[in-house]
Amino acid sequence: MESEFRQDPVTGRQVIIAPARDDRPHDFAGDLPRVNETFDPFLEGHEETTGPEVFAIRDQDSSPNTKGWRVRVVNNKYPAITPSDDIKSVAGLFARSTGFGVHEVIVECPHFETNLSRLSANHIGDVLLAYQQRLETHQQNPKLKHASLFKNKGALGGASLDHAHSQLIVTSEVTENVRLELDGARAYFEQHQRSVFGDIIHAELGSAERIVQDSENFVLLCPFASRFAYEMVIIPKQQICQFEQTEKDKLPELGEILKSALQKLETVLHDPPYNYIVHTAPFHSCDLPDFRWHIELFPRTTLIGGFEWSSGCIINSVSPEAAAQQLRDN
Amino acid sequence: MESEFRQDPVTGRQVIIAPARDDRPHDFAGDLPRVNETFDPFLEGHEETTGPEVFAIRDQDSSPNTKGWRVRVVNNKYPAITPSDDIKSVAGLFARSTGFGVHEVIVECPHFETNLSRLSANHIGDVLLAYQQRLETHQQNPKLKHASLFKNKGALGGASLDHAHSQLIVTSEVTENVRLELDGARAYFEQHQRSVFGDIIHAELGSAERIVQDSENFVLLCPFASRFAYEMVIIPKQQICQFEQTEKDKLPELGEILKSALQKLETVLHDPPYNYIVHTAPFHSCDLPDFRWHIELFPRTTLIGGFEWSSGCIINSVSPEAAAQQLRDN
Repeated sequence: MESEFRQDPVTGRQVIIAPARDDRPHDFAGDLPRVNETFDPFLEGHEETTGPEVFAIRDQDSSPNTKGWRVRVVNNKYPAITPSDDIKSVAGLFARSTGFGVHEVIVECPHFETNLSRLSANHIGDVLLAYQQRLETHQQNPKLKHASLFKNKGALGGASLDHAHSQLIVTSEVTENVRLELDGARAYFEQHQRSVFGDIIHAELGSAERIVQDSENFVLLCPFASRFAYEMVIIPKQQICQFEQTEKDKLPELGEILKSALQKLETVLHDPPYNYIVHTAPFHSCDLPDFRWHIELFPRTTLIGGFEWSSGCIINSVSPEAAAQQLRDN
Repeated sequence: MESEFRQDPVTGRQVIIAPARDDRPHDFAGDLPRVNETFDPFLEGHEETTGPEVFAIRDQDSSPNTKGWRVRVVNNKYPAITPSDDIKSVAGLFARSTGFGVHEVIVECPHFETNLSRLSANHIGDVLLAYQQRLETHQQNPKLKHASLFKNKGALGGASLDHAHSQLIVTSEVTENVRLELDGARAYFEQHQRSVFGDIIHAELGSAERIVQDSENFVLLCPFASRFAYEMVIIPKQQICQFEQTEKDKLPELGEILKSALQKLETVLHDPPYNYIVHTAPFHSCDLPDFRWHIELFPRTTLIGGFEWSSGCIINSVSPEAAAQQLRDN
């Protein structure tokens, strides 16, 4: 069975039913999954064990799918969605459509390394450059509208492999959570004629109680309504809605602040599982004055229970003010 | 610091910041938490170690907070929210208000038992009766509007104690997810003049491919847009919006189908962590023709990764049709 989007008949919420994902070698089976430590498909020299290479930052004299790369992007071998030519849709009570899209893996370094934070800020800048390149490529496809960029670290973070990597899922629709942010940012702008992200930075830098770090072009802080203990967000000071529009010469600085955020998290919580997600505006968004791209970063040390699934409201037992103070001091 | 509701300045979504929860004895600290096996505060005879008893189904000649009970409801010792008299609210970019509400624990049996499914259908019916009694009590408080009833089983399900129990959080607002269901059900009714829940039951019983079990008054099935592998839902055949309005003489039958659902889940997935949640209409909903209470039940064997947090769209690698077949056969 190919993967498909299905819509909940009551709430309208979408899920992806992707039976092919179940073939993954390290899938969950009752216990917490163990990542495979015996063979590393992402290692330099193992290029033929991954999906085909779609982009790499590599030595000038090297060829695709061979050694000589620093960051490498490949198709996910167990994709949640695929770029099918034949898109079918069924409307009605049980609405469904073909799981159309792209699912890629960004391998962050050629040697075995579990923690992105141990790479240099410049190397992390190259990872971010690879993100930009993929976004620029995919927005040339008129069937694709929006990209979800994310990193799963550790088994509880949803990772099935230890070697540092992130992922990209590009879809023909804007996802529910980014749609909510876009709508919220527009409503705020209509009321105040200012970007809510700009106002957040201004207020946070003023009070400083939730600021973790401040650099020339970016701010790292614990969000006021943090869902997770020690959640952080990186917001650019410039009003840029799409991640790929950030000037390339600022990526090493962004790499530096991302590295610092991860190091602080790893110090305070002893190398926790975590996720980060890059929220960026849909393709061809044309300089929105209200929405601003940002990176949300959260350790997965909080277990989500029945109340959260029932309500949609998350209980966080560490205040962001206390978290920011600890993260600043480390 | 008392707990508080905070509203995300961009999305408007609420979180509960509850630092007092961090005092729980078995909280997460880097590894998967272990539930406490040395002392069971929920055991008969240990009544003084819990919060005060607010309701119990107990022997006629026994006194509150002593032995002689079958199901016992107490205040949560580490509440996410509390019934404060002094409710403060702050509006603006960083909107917050006092975490007003009630947080109770329903201890499901007096002896040490981890699995609700091992109790008799009649005993489970008594647990459901305790749910009803608490809903009837709390809706007499004009400050309370809606109840979230849920069960966390196993560490990955969010439980911090092994002894079978469920929880109740009553709030002054309807939660986001139930609001979405209420809105969806109303919109469907306005278009079709029928309850979407009635139409789902009719269509599902017709095709039978996602039906797990059918009894006189309830249907157990794998939802079309299941978020989790082996997710199930129990829907009553009668149009009843509030759980507490279900006739008490039907609770043993509901206990029977809930027991059966849990047994099937435990057989197919080898005693997995799970949650169930009771979605019921707000207090004083007066016989809504569109929304119907239901119990959602899902194992927590799927690890939620960055894509899900980024998008709000969950990837499920087991189709509900395949899951229903396996569950039917077990």
